[in-house]
Amino acid sequence: MNSNKIPDIIIGRLPVYLRALQRLSEKGILTTSSQELGEIIGISAAQIRKDISQFGEFGKQGTGYSIPFLIERLRDILKVDRVWEVIIVGVGDIGHALARYNGFSNRGFHISMVFDNDKQKIGQKVGEFEILDTATLPEKVKQNKIKIAMLTVPAAAAQELTDHLVKAGVKAILNYAPISLNVPPGVHVQYIDPVTHLQRMTYYLD
Amino acid sequence: MNSNKIPDIIIGRLPVYLRALQRLSEKGILTTSSQELGEIIGISAAQIRKDISQFGEFGKQGTGYSIPFLIERLRDILKVDRVWEVIIVGVGDIGHALARYNGFSNRGFHISMVFDNDKQKIGQKVGEFEILDTATLPEKVKQNKIKIAMLTVPAAAAQELTDHLVKAGVKAILNYAPISLNVPPGVHVQYIDPVTHLQRMTYYLD
Repeated sequence: MNSNKIPDIIIGRLPVYLRALQRLSEKGILTTSSQELGEIIGISAAQIRKDISQFGEFGKQGTGYSIPFLIERLRDILKVDRVWEVIIVGVGDIGHALARYNGFSNRGFHISMVFDNDKQKIGQKVGEFEILDTATLPEKVKQNKIKIAMLTVPAAAAQELTDHLVKAGVKAILNYAPISLNVPPGVHVQYIDPVTHLQRMTYYLD
Repeated sequence: MNSNKIPDIIIGRLPVYLRALQRLSEKGILTTSSQELGEIIGISAAQIRKDISQFGEFGKQGTGYSIPFLIERLRDILKVDRVWEVIIVGVGDIGHALARYNGFSNRGFHISMVFDNDKQKIGQKVGEFEILDTATLPEKVKQNKIKIAMLTVPAAAAQELTDHLVKAGVKAILNYAPISLNVPPGVHVQYIDPVTHLQRMTYYLD
């Protein structure tokens, strides 16, 4: 497998394929086709076939894809065949929701710590987690070799915390703050922005 | 403009271009290049040029793109040169965060109503909004010709509420619930799922 050559734009679609396949699998379905997947996801069957063929020969003409096999390969490619420890930085509404979200564990992630800098919140519980002081974040991130953080702080605090996270060894940040983060090469940022999703739909409205 | 022919996958990237351009514009920058945009967004310059060329001749060789002009065209194409009224259904953590988020108004959206079915919440305030009873949702959606909803309810309630929304005339749903929604043709759904974003990054980690 030449996974280093796979364009980022294809990598971006693989988690969407994996999610759809896992949902089919939960219903007890064992095989699917690029047509069926395409209808679920809203991507053309040709695009799906092309993307999946990057990783080898999966489907047989006429019999479709084996769902368990394709799930296993995608989990392997995306490196979610293991469990990544993730921290939450910022316990506002979104941080709260993430700390109590139960959809991480069977998809490759485990929340390990939750931080806030508000003295009223430190020591309190959110879900099963005690809220830790952001001042201890660099030390705890290093100790536990944390590579992934979800950043749910106000925009004004986001860059400074990003710098701390990066310095402590974090390599992937899921950013909910409505600003662009500056990070050095080798550190990955993804943005959760409801407006881009809304704008993608208004194109189709009258 | 032959906008009906633009593949959905390109449409999906336009809001990301628009966001990057608006951020540059806020800094007082007037022109940019596909290289610069590409570095900000993490998409190749060639892809950006190809996408943008679908809508006509924008950049001049050697002088780059006029940011105000490109913003205007993208806002026009995505139909966010107007203001869309949006409702929030479900006032949990995420609904709370969205009701108080101030990033909608200058990007084409205005929250008009907020609903929940919890008697303890109905009549309370969230941000500037009074929480309305979900039982009145179909009537209020029809009266106000609402086309867009953000659905932030538990998974178990999401499909039933979707059916109500669709019946009342909603054409675009931003779904935060961790399930796939069944909607008829002509109704658009986008999913906000932190795990797909995390999985997109783990691919690059060691």
